[in-house]
Amino acid sequence: MGIERNGSRPSAAMARRSFLELAGATALALPASGGARGTTPSTRSKDPNMERTGNDVETVAPALKKYAEGPLHDLWKRPGLTPRDRSMVTLAALIARNQATELPHHLNLALDNGVKPREISEVITHLAFYSGWGNAMAAAAAAKEAFAGRKIGADQLPPASPALLPLDKKAEADRAARVEEQVGKVAPGVVQYTTDVLFRDLWLRPDLAPRDRSLATVSALIASGQVAQVPYHLNRAMENGLTQEQAGEAITHLAFYAGWPNVFSALPVAKEVFEKRRK
Amino acid sequence: MGIERNGSRPSAAMARRSFLELAGATALALPASGGARGTTPSTRSKDPNMERTGNDVETVAPALKKYAEGPLHDLWKRPGLTPRDRSMVTLAALIARNQATELPHHLNLALDNGVKPREISEVITHLAFYSGWGNAMAAAAAAKEAFAGRKIGADQLPPASPALLPLDKKAEADRAARVEEQVGKVAPGVVQYTTDVLFRDLWLRPDLAPRDRSLATVSALIASGQVAQVPYHLNRAMENGLTQEQAGEAITHLAFYAGWPNVFSALPVAKEVFEKRRK
Amino acid sequence: MGIERNGSRPSAAMARRSFLELAGATALALPASGGARGTTPSTRSKDPNMERTGNDVETVAPALKKYAEGPLHDLWKRPGLTPRDRSMVTLAALIARNQATELPHHLNLALDNGVKPREISEVITHLAFYSGWGNAMAAAAAAKEAFAGRKIGADQLPPASPALLPLDKKAEADRAARVEEQVGKVAPGVVQYTTDVLFRDLWLRPDLAPRDRSLATVSALIASGQVAQVPYHLNRAMENGLTQEQAGEAITHLAFYAGWPNVFSALPVAKEVFEKRRK
Repeated sequence: MGIERNGSRPSAAMARRSFLELAGATALALPASGGARGTTPSTRSKDPNMERTGNDVETVAPALKKYAEGPLHDLWKRPGLTPRDRSMVTLAALIARNQATELPHHLNLALDNGVKPREISEVITHLAFYSGWGNAMAAAAAAKEAFAGRKIGADQLPPASPALLPLDKKAEADRAARVEEQVGKVAPGVVQYTTDVLFRDLWLRPDLAPRDRSLATVSALIASGQVAQVPYHLNRAMENGLTQEQAGEAITHLAFYAGWPNVFSALPVAKEVFEKRRK
Repeated sequence: MGIERNGSRPSAAMARRSFLELAGATALALPASGGARGTTPSTRSKDPNMERTGNDVETVAPALKKYAEGPLHDLWKRPGLTPRDRSMVTLAALIARNQATELPHHLNLALDNGVKPREISEVITHLAFYSGWGNAMAAAAAAKEAFAGRKIGADQLPPASPALLPLDKKAEADRAARVEEQVGKVAPGVVQYTTDVLFRDLWLRPDLAPRDRSLATVSALIASGQVAQVPYHLNRAMENGLTQEQAGEAITHLAFYAGWPNVFSALPVAKEVFEKRRK
Repeated sequence: MGIERNGSRPSAAMARRSFLELAGATALALPASGGARGTTPSTRSKDPNMERTGNDVETVAPALKKYAEGPLHDLWKRPGLTPRDRSMVTLAALIARNQATELPHHLNLALDNGVKPREISEVITHLAFYSGWGNAMAAAAAAKEAFAGRKIGADQLPPASPALLPLDKKAEADRAARVEEQVGKVAPGVVQYTTDVLFRDLWLRPDLAPRDRSLATVSALIASGQVAQVPYHLNRAMENGLTQEQAGEAITHLAFYAGWPNVFSALPVAKEVFEKRRK
């Protein structure tokens, strides 16, 4: 019982990550131009700003440090979802919740965990539509700093108009017909944009795998309390290759980054999706 | 099909607006005092900060620039809702979502599009109650900068206590009785403030037309996921003169600024309102 | 009728509070290091930044000043909930809504109103789980400044691992069994963390009374639109000693700080909780 870190002494890499977790609020204290400093993995862990943040939390809520080093640290090590996928989930949650101050740290952690710059670019582009244009603008500003700090250039970004993935014409025609029937008379513009911009363009962009695009979408929905949209997108995610175990771990991960209430509201919905698919 | 900008070459004015759209994140890079620079229409489009922002987005997500110049640009030209009304919808969405970094650009665009300073003042005042006091404080800080940049003085603002619009006593008595009956025993304070402050004062302030006040309210509700409150206020909006087509276009507009999920959750609710009114 | 401040001339203390209310947006204009200046009660009310904020609001929306001095000022004086509890409700709402710019003022007001530093520390720690880790990080950064300005040191903070309050084993076993049965197969990690970290650790931390912990939880839920989680936590709050009148006043208070729509969505849910408990 209890939340102390179990058993064996953490490795140096583990300690570094838990340390990074604590640095969530660092950006608050950094000057706007600070993003360019100490952003490479080797220097970041020695960045004095990091340590100061650890102290920041300790001077207000020592328990938060304990939880960061215990359950939050352990969370990233759980099987069922890779650190790379956990970073994808976390980024989607932060963008959907417009938590710009948390983004610098998690953008760097995502890159450390193997999320490609082009994938980050696509997640931001995708969430412009799934969490609002302004959220994507704020995320782009944070990503610009993170990319500059690692000398990530235009050659590592997806083109504006790449060759698109093939369209599943039958499934898309079904989806479009259903939406048209449901709300075509209420807002014909939404129906048109949903088809032309979202499902015949955005979702077919090749630089983020459909499974990852779905994982980011579902994470954003849960993180921003949009449970009504979860059934369609969780089903789509599983058709795109996300397993039930991975979905369950993504939800577990979101408990920490989007809060328990969002997760407890999403769980019965996810349960129903899983049960219906089994039949 | 597709999302490329259709046909004819855009006019200079159009190009400028699409350019302004890209500048959503500009404020992030501006010093706090920067609002006073380059805020008149003639100089703003030449503001080097604008161009830099366009480049910012391009160094992270080139596709966002394409979408800004394509569908997002076209959105503002759609018939069914004037650019002035679209600015009203956008401001309400940004205030309701507390997206302070997007506000400077959209406050200026709203003024360009014909929203009067006194109307902006009233939208902020109104949303203090419909999206929380703190949201209005943040919006007031942004508006102060925008107004200063255009030398908008106190003479263009609504008085604190103007002569109020006439009250529809019958409708208000019905509303008050219904709320009293429903929740009067749960929170008598809410019932009292709702009557005295909201419906016998705020809603009767003359410097924002009831139709526009309703448009801002409905936009704020949808943008912040408050679908349960949409039926009452969408009905009220239509009684105040908003047409179904305008409501549908406002929802379409919000897809971009508040994200697709908020809009897809609001659409079935709006549909039911429209259908019931037709009977 | 109407919203003018009623009758008797406000005392100096009252006038000061209404003045502080107006200062909600001050932080926007303050340099990051400004928190250390003028944060003691005696100097704060003379802080020229305060006055300037009053003017800020007036240069945009004179009505907001009127509402601040009228209904918002009166709100804090209403019987049924002490100013100390109102500060607790307000802090929980601001943290849950991630309104970092409002926090500096309300942290100081909370300390003035008798909320203990250790209680603020616990509210932040608690809401790391109930509103997301990032929200707590932003709140910790704001609290660090507020604590520094009053020379609140580590001796006034709760330890990371205190002796815990006794566990109600029967009630906790019931809760855990219910959650396990409902969603144990969907997200076993959530179930485990909810037991180990939340209900066998966080909720038993002694430096925030269970009644206050519940008040903060319910306030955060309502302020962030999480109505689905209100029934369980409102019942728990009342078992922890919150009266129905206090709950109703907390909801009234939240109307101003979280907006009318969140409150109108929560009221029917609260009503049902109250009615069921009476049977």
